[in-house]
Amino acid sequence: MYKKNFMIAMIAAACLSTNALADDCSHSKWGHEDEIGAANYVTPEQVLAATNLVKKGESHGLGIVIEPGMPAFPPRFAQLQVLQPGQHYNNDTSKAFGWPMVYNDDVVQMWLGTGPQIDGLGHLGESNMFYNCNDGASFSDVKGLTKLGIEKIPPMIGRGVLLDMTSHFGVEAMDAGQAIMSSDIEAAAKAQGVTFKQGDVILMHTGWTDAKLKADPKAWVSGEPGISNEAAEYLASFNPMAVGSDTWGLEAVPPAEGDKVFYGHVTLLKKNGIYILETMNTGPLVEKGVNEFMFVLGQAKIKGAVQMIINPVAMW
Amino acid sequence: MYKKNFMIAMIAAACLSTNALADDCSHSKWGHEDEIGAANYVTPEQVLAATNLVKKGESHGLGIVIEPGMPAFPPRFAQLQVLQPGQHYNNDTSKAFGWPMVYNDDVVQMWLGTGPQIDGLGHLGESNMFYNCNDGASFSDVKGLTKLGIEKIPPMIGRGVLLDMTSHFGVEAMDAGQAIMSSDIEAAAKAQGVTFKQGDVILMHTGWTDAKLKADPKAWVSGEPGISNEAAEYLASFNPMAVGSDTWGLEAVPPAEGDKVFYGHVTLLKKNGIYILETMNTGPLVEKGVNEFMFVLGQAKIKGAVQMIINPVAMW
Amino acid sequence: MYKKNFMIAMIAAACLSTNALADDCSHSKWGHEDEIGAANYVTPEQVLAATNLVKKGESHGLGIVIEPGMPAFPPRFAQLQVLQPGQHYNNDTSKAFGWPMVYNDDVVQMWLGTGPQIDGLGHLGESNMFYNCNDGASFSDVKGLTKLGIEKIPPMIGRGVLLDMTSHFGVEAMDAGQAIMSSDIEAAAKAQGVTFKQGDVILMHTGWTDAKLKADPKAWVSGEPGISNEAAEYLASFNPMAVGSDTWGLEAVPPAEGDKVFYGHVTLLKKNGIYILETMNTGPLVEKGVNEFMFVLGQAKIKGAVQMIINPVAMW
Amino acid sequence: MYKKNFMIAMIAAACLSTNALADDCSHSKWGHEDEIGAANYVTPEQVLAATNLVKKGESHGLGIVIEPGMPAFPPRFAQLQVLQPGQHYNNDTSKAFGWPMVYNDDVVQMWLGTGPQIDGLGHLGESNMFYNCNDGASFSDVKGLTKLGIEKIPPMIGRGVLLDMTSHFGVEAMDAGQAIMSSDIEAAAKAQGVTFKQGDVILMHTGWTDAKLKADPKAWVSGEPGISNEAAEYLASFNPMAVGSDTWGLEAVPPAEGDKVFYGHVTLLKKNGIYILETMNTGPLVEKGVNEFMFVLGQAKIKGAVQMIINPVAMW
Repeated sequence: MYKKNFMIAMIAAACLSTNALADDCSHSKWGHEDEIGAANYVTPEQVLAATNLVKKGESHGLGIVIEPGMPAFPPRFAQLQVLQPGQHYNNDTSKAFGWPMVYNDDVVQMWLGTGPQIDGLGHLGESNMFYNCNDGASFSDVKGLTKLGIEKIPPMIGRGVLLDMTSHFGVEAMDAGQAIMSSDIEAAAKAQGVTFKQGDVILMHTGWTDAKLKADPKAWVSGEPGISNEAAEYLASFNPMAVGSDTWGLEAVPPAEGDKVFYGHVTLLKKNGIYILETMNTGPLVEKGVNEFMFVLGQAKIKGAVQMIINPVAMW
Repeated sequence: MYKKNFMIAMIAAACLSTNALADDCSHSKWGHEDEIGAANYVTPEQVLAATNLVKKGESHGLGIVIEPGMPAFPPRFAQLQVLQPGQHYNNDTSKAFGWPMVYNDDVVQMWLGTGPQIDGLGHLGESNMFYNCNDGASFSDVKGLTKLGIEKIPPMIGRGVLLDMTSHFGVEAMDAGQAIMSSDIEAAAKAQGVTFKQGDVILMHTGWTDAKLKADPKAWVSGEPGISNEAAEYLASFNPMAVGSDTWGLEAVPPAEGDKVFYGHVTLLKKNGIYILETMNTGPLVEKGVNEFMFVLGQAKIKGAVQMIINPVAMW
Repeated sequence: MYKKNFMIAMIAAACLSTNALADDCSHSKWGHEDEIGAANYVTPEQVLAATNLVKKGESHGLGIVIEPGMPAFPPRFAQLQVLQPGQHYNNDTSKAFGWPMVYNDDVVQMWLGTGPQIDGLGHLGESNMFYNCNDGASFSDVKGLTKLGIEKIPPMIGRGVLLDMTSHFGVEAMDAGQAIMSSDIEAAAKAQGVTFKQGDVILMHTGWTDAKLKADPKAWVSGEPGISNEAAEYLASFNPMAVGSDTWGLEAVPPAEGDKVFYGHVTLLKKNGIYILETMNTGPLVEKGVNEFMFVLGQAKIKGAVQMIINPVAMW
Repeated sequence: MYKKNFMIAMIAAACLSTNALADDCSHSKWGHEDEIGAANYVTPEQVLAATNLVKKGESHGLGIVIEPGMPAFPPRFAQLQVLQPGQHYNNDTSKAFGWPMVYNDDVVQMWLGTGPQIDGLGHLGESNMFYNCNDGASFSDVKGLTKLGIEKIPPMIGRGVLLDMTSHFGVEAMDAGQAIMSSDIEAAAKAQGVTFKQGDVILMHTGWTDAKLKADPKAWVSGEPGISNEAAEYLASFNPMAVGSDTWGLEAVPPAEGDKVFYGHVTLLKKNGIYILETMNTGPLVEKGVNEFMFVLGQAKIKGAVQMIINPVAMW
């Protein structure tokens, strides 16, 4: 028995040993055991308030179409094959099924961080430390995260608000590296009549994906407009459930002068348990003048996944 | 120029040539060009009516957790790897990013028909003919469906109703091959106070997955309780948007005496454009006594995919 | 018990039912049960004769490097990831292994027909009929071929000969669609002192891959120089074990006037059980003036695979 | 331009930064730049000497069959799908190709360390240091090793010798954890008339895979008989090109009393540049009484791969 289980025990030990905690770790306001962060804001009150935002009965899926072969943060990719098991070469399925059944099936090979996605709380950290003082080595098994996995997140239901940053900057689309500062958010919100409440999903439209994804795929993935480091802190101060944009990484790339690239992810995910939504299809909402809506996201729950391809539903 | 494009033209031709239409084809009531079938029921009226069903503000994700390695209709499978690109061997990410960024990423290899899933209208047909007189050969490209792909489906929002068939049959869980007849549906609906309206999502709880998936995975995937052929027609007569269950294939396997195995898929998908939802996590709704709710599904939109792993949200 | 095995029996039946044989089928000269065709030529005599060709002790691997992302016959692709399981975030592997072990592992997602490859006898047929009267539906299971799989092929050892068609045509590289006729083969062989014997591996150097793969990947995969339909028959008449080239598909694409595209595959694989070797790295042999050598191929034996990535060894 | 290339430069920097060298690093005897280690032994003299070992003209492929779903060192796996692109639903390929062409293609998702495999010199190290003072962080890119990749290895041609350890121990198959000491190797070699020369491929038959892979797959992968730490040093002292066995990991698991598990990999790969061959099909050679043969390995050359599935050819 010892011998039979030796390998498995060894591997398990290798994958899940725990390092010492970093000194600068602050536990979550939802408790030491919390794994879902700002999804805790989904209360009955928040759900009921959100349904009250649906006045016209209109809706929109915020996930762009994921095209196999589309660009993604390196080395991510997505590939799809459609198959017809057992139906080739005029094989008569009647013999097996009793009637001429035909069907398509499909297989994917993909990085879950391709296209429209939610960043789970186990996605990004600093100095090996992730949300709620979870040391990376303690939960990042190669077969799936043992904590902070995407399957832990309950349905994310709440109020969604949209800031049109193209209108704020007076452009059709923002440019790569163009930073959104807290002052821009404040001014745009004021001008567009948008307020922020605890538990909100805050989306920003930069025009980047609409302008570049098809027209110049390499440029699209090589940079992006987005929030500055201090804007991430400003947004976090409103205690939103999630922050998102129509870009592949939310933050300005290259970063603003003096900023750390992608450090807003630390502010949101690690320090505050706030989710990040990327490559959201915000253009149609801007076109229709919608800046407040009911937001509903039920992401497929692959156990231990870090991120997930999504298509949240906006209703107004 | 001719030479350069020869291969591409040839392949394209191979993948998309059109056979003669079958004689028995009936076009959709939504028109010859329709690709979304019963998702057409999602009107502003239906959305508004659905929001009115949310009274307590409670919610539940209907997708079970997809565990890599879990059983699935052969030869389907799912595998996941979690990686830390560029962060191995104590590599100091500060050199590249200017600060000690760490992150997990993830890759999947999977059949999209694994675990909780929506069957798109391009999934199953009869005699090479699919929904709305689409000949299989005309749209089933190996790189993705060119019609009826999962990315075409708009957010599915409506009224959800749940029938507890375990209560109807007086069992904890139905047995493999145990058929649900139209008379069972009628009786259960009456006893449980459930009515059916056009555009509804009709779910049935059999107890199968709760009882068998963990306890006996091989048995779980080798058979299932579910609707009979005539029950599929009965359900279709109410013009629902989708029909689903807590089983991997909705229908009784082995089929009821005289039934064609899986033929209810033809009745729903091909003949009526009604979606099928599989492996739905209905147990918690039964426990809470919820049989009417707002249903919201925004499935990730991989272009040309046949099926999609899902986690629809129920709110009541 | 019946119920438990119902699905499996049904699927098995679906995948392996047998259609009626085509009228025009001719069985292999190696018998009705033969699955390896011209690999039957590997006799002790042939092996010994081949070793006698090694006079200088020099060697060359005929497989080009397979670069993830390289072009391939659509929709084929190859992707690779290198991982370090359990070694992230400064995880101390000493805890599990007792010493600071570190290791890289790797995962691929790929079509086996990418880059240098052998076409097995189950790869290509005509009118649903493959080598030795094997109906496609009878052995082409989605989980792997049940006959003619790549794992059946014994080590392919024999005499290799190389024809330099660039020298014959007086070009650095042949052009896409430029056909090699039997008369070209005959003339080149005569001029270059090459003879053909039963059981040989006959390779042709066109210069196509050296000229185009890096310089113009799209052009490389969109066409190619290669043998005509009658040249395939001419080559088959020598009873070789395999025929190959430095192109992705051996045959001229677009085909010669009046030829059927890829029909040489039928002549070689289906009608004669002769293997096809593609994207062979013949350039270095031409540079060194080597046109006769010992050929050794041991392909990795994935059960049921149709093709296999290879790197045969030439020694002289 | 700066902006366009920002991401790519950043990623490249992240993946390939160099840490300080460990103090205890010894460079290879083949020079500071060497990446192929003991494959340097493949000289014309060695190749010619090897061909002289072929006396009967018999041959054997040393790779066992890789069955999709077979056990492997966790979390490795292999999956295969066979497809018929564009040939479903009675699609008439004549329209595209001008004749009724049919063909099978295949896709794999697999860890390259599944089944019969060669461990490249970039596979395993100690304290982040690999062969020839290569720091793991400096060459282990997630998209492929930038040094020590499997594609660098030239054809491995030489003398192969086989020790039958089952005969030495008087068993049909050795047991998991049963260690092969240097004294065992010495005694077996003497009794079986086997000598060791520089550049040899030394294989040991333990009977483990023949006895356990099919009969008890879980036991097979949970432990294995194999060499002790000091036996690895003893074998290395003969300067072989490769050392291999019919087990999945060459070394005793659990390790011998006082040994470090898998540390023989460090002795062979890192310290001496000697390749490791795993899951070799040695049984048939033992049956035929073959213990000296010509060894030829041409592994498929995926750029940056760490390991590779193989089928080396033995000829005698």
